[in-house]
Amino acid sequence: MLPSGTKPANPRPPLAAWLRDSNSITRQFMALGGRPDVISLAGGLPAAELYPVEDIARASQAALRRWGATALEYGAIEGLPALRAAVAARISAEAGLALGPENVLLTTGAMQGLDLLGKALIDPGDLIVAQFPTYLGALDAWRPRRPTYEALIWDGGGRAFDAALARAKFVYAVPNYSNPTGALVSQGQRRALLDRVAAAGTWLVEDDPYLPLQLDGPAGPSLLALQGAGRAGDPYAGPVIYLGTLSKSLVPGLRVGWIVAEAGLIEALALTKQSTDISSSMLTQAIALELIESGFEAGHAQRILPVYRERRDALCAALAEHLGDWFDWEVPPGGMFVWVRARLPEIDTDALYADALAEKVAFVPSSVFDPSGALTSAMRLNFTRSTPDHLRDGVARLARAVRRHLAARPGRAA
Amino acid sequence: MLPSGTKPANPRPPLAAWLRDSNSITRQFMALGGRPDVISLAGGLPAAELYPVEDIARASQAALRRWGATALEYGAIEGLPALRAAVAARISAEAGLALGPENVLLTTGAMQGLDLLGKALIDPGDLIVAQFPTYLGALDAWRPRRPTYEALIWDGGGRAFDAALARAKFVYAVPNYSNPTGALVSQGQRRALLDRVAAAGTWLVEDDPYLPLQLDGPAGPSLLALQGAGRAGDPYAGPVIYLGTLSKSLVPGLRVGWIVAEAGLIEALALTKQSTDISSSMLTQAIALELIESGFEAGHAQRILPVYRERRDALCAALAEHLGDWFDWEVPPGGMFVWVRARLPEIDTDALYADALAEKVAFVPSSVFDPSGALTSAMRLNFTRSTPDHLRDGVARLARAVRRHLAARPGRAA
Repeated sequence: MLPSGTKPANPRPPLAAWLRDSNSITRQFMALGGRPDVISLAGGLPAAELYPVEDIARASQAALRRWGATALEYGAIEGLPALRAAVAARISAEAGLALGPENVLLTTGAMQGLDLLGKALIDPGDLIVAQFPTYLGALDAWRPRRPTYEALIWDGGGRAFDAALARAKFVYAVPNYSNPTGALVSQGQRRALLDRVAAAGTWLVEDDPYLPLQLDGPAGPSLLALQGAGRAGDPYAGPVIYLGTLSKSLVPGLRVGWIVAEAGLIEALALTKQSTDISSSMLTQAIALELIESGFEAGHAQRILPVYRERRDALCAALAEHLGDWFDWEVPPGGMFVWVRARLPEIDTDALYADALAEKVAFVPSSVFDPSGALTSAMRLNFTRSTPDHLRDGVARLARAVRRHLAARPGRAA
Repeated sequence: MLPSGTKPANPRPPLAAWLRDSNSITRQFMALGGRPDVISLAGGLPAAELYPVEDIARASQAALRRWGATALEYGAIEGLPALRAAVAARISAEAGLALGPENVLLTTGAMQGLDLLGKALIDPGDLIVAQFPTYLGALDAWRPRRPTYEALIWDGGGRAFDAALARAKFVYAVPNYSNPTGALVSQGQRRALLDRVAAAGTWLVEDDPYLPLQLDGPAGPSLLALQGAGRAGDPYAGPVIYLGTLSKSLVPGLRVGWIVAEAGLIEALALTKQSTDISSSMLTQAIALELIESGFEAGHAQRILPVYRERRDALCAALAEHLGDWFDWEVPPGGMFVWVRARLPEIDTDALYADALAEKVAFVPSSVFDPSGALTSAMRLNFTRSTPDHLRDGVARLARAVRRHLAARPGRAA
């Protein structure tokens, strides 16, 4: 649905067809951040009070001293070579691989990685096998390429699922603390998927923005690590396309993310990035490099964990107090979200959203994580952006909204 | 043509179809910058020795003091509100309009503006009427959307041209010091095009990156200004979509550009940007705001003009000395390029390019500015990136390359 007012006053040629199926959900949720009377559990934002403003100011001075005019050029399409090398070294260490800069493309956040992958791989009608429910931003990024979707089945699945894999352009998975569900996919399930992907010969996109937010201990090896195990000497030639970002461990505003993949695909993605914005800012890449090389970023990621853990626990305790009669959820072992599923069939979270706004609290309804829009029984709640007090207050408001919602649906048990 | 090595070792699903028609020209030219033995007249880069590194370092400190964590957020999809307002005020003053922030979307350079316009407006097979020869980056940006092209005819044209305008999704024009030709389109031709566009009811994209580089006096009113003349009190509702950037007046590496258009289209473009990278860096936007508000950027744009004027004149004098027997050109009144056209039909600039590289000089052959690739009689030379000495040396090398080229084409007069 386009926002009202999109139609120009004079008739002009129509917008591209995909925009008719688009939505302004992310934009609406970001706008809610400007309303102090609304407690927004909707966004996927870090805690802004933890942003290391002074350290980034120092890093920007260091970066400009070190790189001078080089930090102010268009620079290489693939990104600042030293940062590509640093990312390659870091992921190599994490995954037990011997990646080089040729395996890394730097992007404007991991979101641009999704956009570039869509452009480089998807023709209209192509199939994506995606973890379900699916990250809203991925659906947004790929909508202009007009793909179709089938659901990823981590274990089991059988012949129909294997046939889907064989037809798919790629598989899309968020194994660590998925958006929206917060779920951590088991190592056994990862291995099972890798076997099926290898048999099908397709690509496997591993989107890993939440890796730094391991609240209850290690997440375990990534798909990239499992797939590349025992091949540390060879150039990486596997099917995994790995996406990472500094948005969760440091700040989103540098807009520094990366794609790690086999070198030939990185070349195709660089052509795609050339067509998109020539290059991302070398200055913010040079700042990121300072913060990674000095170890600051790794330390900062550790320092925010106790704050997020306290917030997750506050949210889950409030849910148990106020919403336990109507909803189920699991305590997520990491990430930013709790996925709250209605036990009562009469609860429709699309409709509940209006009641919640009336009570001045916001969440993300589950329908936006479903390519078909049909999933209306759950909601995503964010715990990283709000203080424990606000989280408790927000859940109390949400309970009032549920009562209002159920009262407005006569003939259905509450 | 994809670079070799793009095909993965294991067979995988194919890349998107548009990549088969893509090219790595921009990337190759950027790579030439790393070869000190080659004089590159190929790129479209500013003079890096003029980048105000210290001033940008100071502005980054001021921006982080002023905005704090706000400069490190994702921020609004449309861009930092204060910079949107500053751009609206600046273009309003230039064009005699009353634009507001709702008329401005900030982008990762003007290149991302082209990408977003392609995504928001083009469906496969849609027609673009484009100034010919056409900016390579625009052809790159729109290739994933699979448009068709017809040539813009500034005056004359008649019924067939009007019919093309009526079918077109938009018209694409670079009236100020076009890339690649350096030509300044006359005010009369601008008015004539505006009349035809109004009659046809289509959009008109005015790409204006070279506005700050007015080497021989004022460029005159933009299409945006001419179209909006006398309507200063009304919300802008015209067909002009105006693209600007700080890449030429300041530095490219901040990656700050803008789209100015009627508010409804800006909303659709914001949805498109949400799908693309969520937002551009708030930090580089906040730095840009400091440099615009303080007047530094406007002053800097004036300070670089004498340097560029000297370089343009040095290039044109060297062309007269070395290439006058074989080529024609006009001295461009602004911008970054001289467009050099072969008088001899036996000169093929695609083939000449290899001879030039053998003589360690590079240019951009005309074929890349033609959607069909058939224009092989001209070349684009850049004068902003090289010193006068290098420009003279480069043209002398080019003359040797032409002799080599003509000698290798037996039976054709030299």
